[in-house]
Amino acid sequence: MNRICQLFGIEYPIVQGGMIWCSGWELAAAVSNAGGLGLIGAGSMYPEVLREHIQKTKLATSQPFGVNLPLLYPQIDDHIQIIIEEKVPIVFTSAGNPNKFTAKLKSNGIVVAHVVANTKFALKCVEAGVDAIVAEGFEAGGHNGFEETTTMSLIPLIRKTVDIPLIAAGGIGCGKSMLAAMALGADGVQIGSRFVASVESSAHPDFKQKIVEAKEGETELILKNIVPVRLLKNDFYKEMKKLENERAGISQLVAHLGKGRAKKGMFEGDMQAGELEIGQVSANIDQILPVSEIISGMLAEYRSQRALLPKL
Amino acid sequence: MNRICQLFGIEYPIVQGGMIWCSGWELAAAVSNAGGLGLIGAGSMYPEVLREHIQKTKLATSQPFGVNLPLLYPQIDDHIQIIIEEKVPIVFTSAGNPNKFTAKLKSNGIVVAHVVANTKFALKCVEAGVDAIVAEGFEAGGHNGFEETTTMSLIPLIRKTVDIPLIAAGGIGCGKSMLAAMALGADGVQIGSRFVASVESSAHPDFKQKIVEAKEGETELILKNIVPVRLLKNDFYKEMKKLENERAGISQLVAHLGKGRAKKGMFEGDMQAGELEIGQVSANIDQILPVSEIISGMLAEYRSQRALLPKL
Repeated sequence: MNRICQLFGIEYPIVQGGMIWCSGWELAAAVSNAGGLGLIGAGSMYPEVLREHIQKTKLATSQPFGVNLPLLYPQIDDHIQIIIEEKVPIVFTSAGNPNKFTAKLKSNGIVVAHVVANTKFALKCVEAGVDAIVAEGFEAGGHNGFEETTTMSLIPLIRKTVDIPLIAAGGIGCGKSMLAAMALGADGVQIGSRFVASVESSAHPDFKQKIVEAKEGETELILKNIVPVRLLKNDFYKEMKKLENERAGISQLVAHLGKGRAKKGMFEGDMQAGELEIGQVSANIDQILPVSEIISGMLAEYRSQRALLPKL
Repeated sequence: MNRICQLFGIEYPIVQGGMIWCSGWELAAAVSNAGGLGLIGAGSMYPEVLREHIQKTKLATSQPFGVNLPLLYPQIDDHIQIIIEEKVPIVFTSAGNPNKFTAKLKSNGIVVAHVVANTKFALKCVEAGVDAIVAEGFEAGGHNGFEETTTMSLIPLIRKTVDIPLIAAGGIGCGKSMLAAMALGADGVQIGSRFVASVESSAHPDFKQKIVEAKEGETELILKNIVPVRLLKNDFYKEMKKLENERAGISQLVAHLGKGRAKKGMFEGDMQAGELEIGQVSANIDQILPVSEIISGMLAEYRSQRALLPKL
């Protein structure tokens, strides 16, 4: 049996990425109900909001689900406490050191995965005792690694370095790319952008439509001196890019970045002044679909493409 | 039968990228003799040097081979003339408009492939009547596209857009990544960096050794305002990066780039003052090997990995 399915108790090795402002209880439950692993994206939630989403997810699905928790969150201890109290079975941590909370979560019976972008952190994950690694390539939306290593280059390297279950992320939005990720040596895939453009995601309808319309070259990884992030090219992107090109200092960039830009864009639908985090795979997304259709379509393409692979 | 094998009359759908200073007659012949398609990289050759390499390749292999021809070369008409005179069966063109020479080459019985980095140029290739497309992702070494689209994101998009035989390039250096490329919808693969670190490549031994030692994050795509190129991070890279960061004008960058830097680095072995073009996959190359072993190892890994792909 597939190691990712076994570890999480799911039917298909498809994990939905925990994305700020886009992945609330409705998306997480829909993915879990369709046989994948749904994750509540805690990055945009105050502790009590997270509790509400966990409780709603439990009511909406009897299948395993999890929470994605960026470790740089200021109220991180409260989040951890709520996750433990609510008996969330699975936690994906990111944006921090896996050593920090893995032991605590695991001692509470929680399965822990951690997101990395290089082999150095993959090895740290193994040391910290995490149960699975998500390795995310340069093409992924949102925050990303400094080395710019793509999924194609990253996954075989991580596979060669560590033995624990490995989930590939970045550039995966169809059955072909899912099959490619498994070919590279992953045990499963994490999918973000494709699920943002689903019926059940909490992204603003205008953002979903923008993803459907996005073409090649319309996202870029910027802010490499603060924290690299892949954005859709709108007015906000242009302003940040201009400051970056003018060699603005970090404090100036942070000040302009301001607060609430991601919410303004992805959740409230301001397509020009808001921050729109999405992956390169947006160029290959043509329709807003229900989660169940996304997953069944992906599996159908995976199977037909697998049958076509030449023997050589 | 595989479309790429059929088109070129080869045994395995593996094309060796035509790389300046690294792919002379010895490498091309070795790849063709091992069942792939060897290409002489004309980008670093004066017309008469190219003629010599073509003649030597013919003596060294009875299998099909080709020439890779960057269309921006100043003496391009002389190169084309020699290719026709010498009855080279296959030409890969790059760095230019496929409309320019495709008809002339094809009217002389030559099979033509063209290298692209986006769907716009893929469509231009179809219009121009080329026989196959090479689609190259952001992770590839040397010159690259402006959109930074990775192989994982690019190949399914090109596959959806055009029907002609498709060769994936960028990030492919082992059997796993070759299988992934086929999963993404490619009919074959083009491999550059892995063959630079072969016994038969004309790269300087110190450059080959440098590739074996290269780790993750040690290449970067720079010079985005002139012509994007992925380089290994040495002193030359640092100087160019510094100028770029200081927003140097194009003329200043071109002046500093100077002439002969690629030759100095890759062919003459100046590891600091020379320009070293190589892909991200260098981080996954651990040994200088004969071409025949590279290809047989890749095929063995392809086959074993293919057998492991879950059915789902």
